[in-house]
Amino acid sequence: MKVGIVGGGQLARMLVLAGYPLGLEFRVLDPAADACAGQVARLIQSHYDDEVHLAELAAWADVVTFDFENVPAAAARILAQQSVVYPPEEALAIAQDRLLEKTLFWELGIPAPTFSTVDSLEELHDAALRVGLPAVLKTRRLGYDGKGQQVLHNAAELESAWEALGAVPLILEEFVPFEREVSVLAVRGRGGETAFYPLVDNQHRDGMLRLSQAPLTAPALEQEGFDYARRLLERLNYVGLLAIEFFVKDGHLVVNEMAPRVHNSGHWTLEGAETSQFENHLRAILGLPLGSTAAVGYSAMLNGIGDLPERAAVLATPGAHYHAYGKALRPGRKVGHVTLWATDPGSLPAGLERLQALTTG
Amino acid sequence: MKVGIVGGGQLARMLVLAGYPLGLEFRVLDPAADACAGQVARLIQSHYDDEVHLAELAAWADVVTFDFENVPAAAARILAQQSVVYPPEEALAIAQDRLLEKTLFWELGIPAPTFSTVDSLEELHDAALRVGLPAVLKTRRLGYDGKGQQVLHNAAELESAWEALGAVPLILEEFVPFEREVSVLAVRGRGGETAFYPLVDNQHRDGMLRLSQAPLTAPALEQEGFDYARRLLERLNYVGLLAIEFFVKDGHLVVNEMAPRVHNSGHWTLEGAETSQFENHLRAILGLPLGSTAAVGYSAMLNGIGDLPERAAVLATPGAHYHAYGKALRPGRKVGHVTLWATDPGSLPAGLERLQALTTG
Repeated sequence: MKVGIVGGGQLARMLVLAGYPLGLEFRVLDPAADACAGQVARLIQSHYDDEVHLAELAAWADVVTFDFENVPAAAARILAQQSVVYPPEEALAIAQDRLLEKTLFWELGIPAPTFSTVDSLEELHDAALRVGLPAVLKTRRLGYDGKGQQVLHNAAELESAWEALGAVPLILEEFVPFEREVSVLAVRGRGGETAFYPLVDNQHRDGMLRLSQAPLTAPALEQEGFDYARRLLERLNYVGLLAIEFFVKDGHLVVNEMAPRVHNSGHWTLEGAETSQFENHLRAILGLPLGSTAAVGYSAMLNGIGDLPERAAVLATPGAHYHAYGKALRPGRKVGHVTLWATDPGSLPAGLERLQALTTG
Repeated sequence: MKVGIVGGGQLARMLVLAGYPLGLEFRVLDPAADACAGQVARLIQSHYDDEVHLAELAAWADVVTFDFENVPAAAARILAQQSVVYPPEEALAIAQDRLLEKTLFWELGIPAPTFSTVDSLEELHDAALRVGLPAVLKTRRLGYDGKGQQVLHNAAELESAWEALGAVPLILEEFVPFEREVSVLAVRGRGGETAFYPLVDNQHRDGMLRLSQAPLTAPALEQEGFDYARRLLERLNYVGLLAIEFFVKDGHLVVNEMAPRVHNSGHWTLEGAETSQFENHLRAILGLPLGSTAAVGYSAMLNGIGDLPERAAVLATPGAHYHAYGKALRPGRKVGHVTLWATDPGSLPAGLERLQALTTG
């Protein structure tokens, strides 16, 4: 079967590598000639609004999917005219727009931060009063990895924040003083069957994910997370893998955002789960039976941001697995990750310390 | 780093897929335009004695390796002039010739069947007396998967066997009435460090491997196997993965043959070991630290010969993983395998029965 992927970054690359053993063929569409998934599958170099190339991909593929959610709505529509497209267009549209996303969370009874839309400096002042400070000012669209957002601590910061971000529609969101951040990776098949990976503990710095650890043993939180994920999967008639990021506050989950795709906080599943998130996303969109999402052992995933630690030093670390994405090194860019895997969770901290020393050294 | 692979079958394909996360690039050389590794890496379509293409591969690659052992000795020499080649040429030369191979086993004190060379019908009669019947008549070179061999039960069969095989040098080998067949997968790095996968239990039919199960809990046998493997690795100054097949007779190992490459009886390591045989072969030939060869859970690997069971039915089997090679279906051809993985070995038989019913149904 033929799978088209819009977006040719590391997520597409790992989907492709997971899909070859299933007997699948792939083409990826990306504007960049050096898109890293193009090293492992045929690349259609094309802008996301190029109807001719989108139609070419759709005509070839049995199913089309995405490695990022900011695909123009028009592109998704063109693809859907000639092929089967998963996740559904509505899920993409909602995930692209923080206002739609938060509205959906509230509609489904999923606790989310208070927020207010902001389209002028005046509205920002009003919103700051309503939401309270500190608060987070975010662009409604195209934000990722902490880009397009700013934390506001006091009223004196409003004007400069407005000047930095206000060219586009914004929302102001309650700042959640969280105890930790976690994510749920959920998958739903074409027939409506669902499966959930164990809860993941995430640590961010400067808006980017640095470290994920799984499984996080927190049964009550996990049940909350699975419940919220199930509501989203069903409401969206979702097919594929859906990632949902949460804050933990006062021992309960507060939703942050969702991503309608495989997710950085699920990379540990390559070694640490019976079926990886990549394989399960493919199984779901192709109508194949889902695989077990059970954890195998204990995993920690360290992102390589801007650079990767020296390969030989990583591989000399017991339990370490190296994942280069084939991307040129650039500050702030995710160029690979390292997974640390162990049967005994007690051995993870020492290995992590060693890997972190390599990363910053 | 750049890795060239001579031979573009499923072993090359799985090496490539294991190597991308390590940040490696690949080219494969194979005479067939549809060589299945060519779906996942750039293919140089070329005969194995084509000096121009061999030199092109060697000039490009940092290291060259093989997905089968019957590479002409001249080809290995041409490659070695321009690149680093592992496993060493001597290991290939010995594995290509049953006489050299058996001589080495005897030299190293590794129990092997009695044998005698056969270059005429008269020598076959003499050999039958010396070795005794039943015995196995084999071509000295180019035998694999039971091809180029015949079991002789009585003197009346000698002449027809000679007519069938006698156009090339042969050996007659004592028939070993074995209790079971096992294999050792051993790996040695550039610095001489070694690692050994747990013992594998193998079942053949019509000369082809059908089922591997690992780990086989048989500590005494395993220690014998590791000891013999270590002798071979050191004597050959071996670098890479070496597979050695044994018979078990009277509770001890009798060597059958070796393969200087990744091996069908090691495919279970993709899910069932901390580091797969494919990744460890690459780590070894690149001078990278070897990964742990410890088993994770319990695995059974079923070969897909001529065909593969229906994908959805396989994936609906708990613990099953599907590995298609992207090859055209043809009777007697290895086109894929299925691994059954479990944390509890007691659950394997039921799953295996289900998979075997799919395979033959």
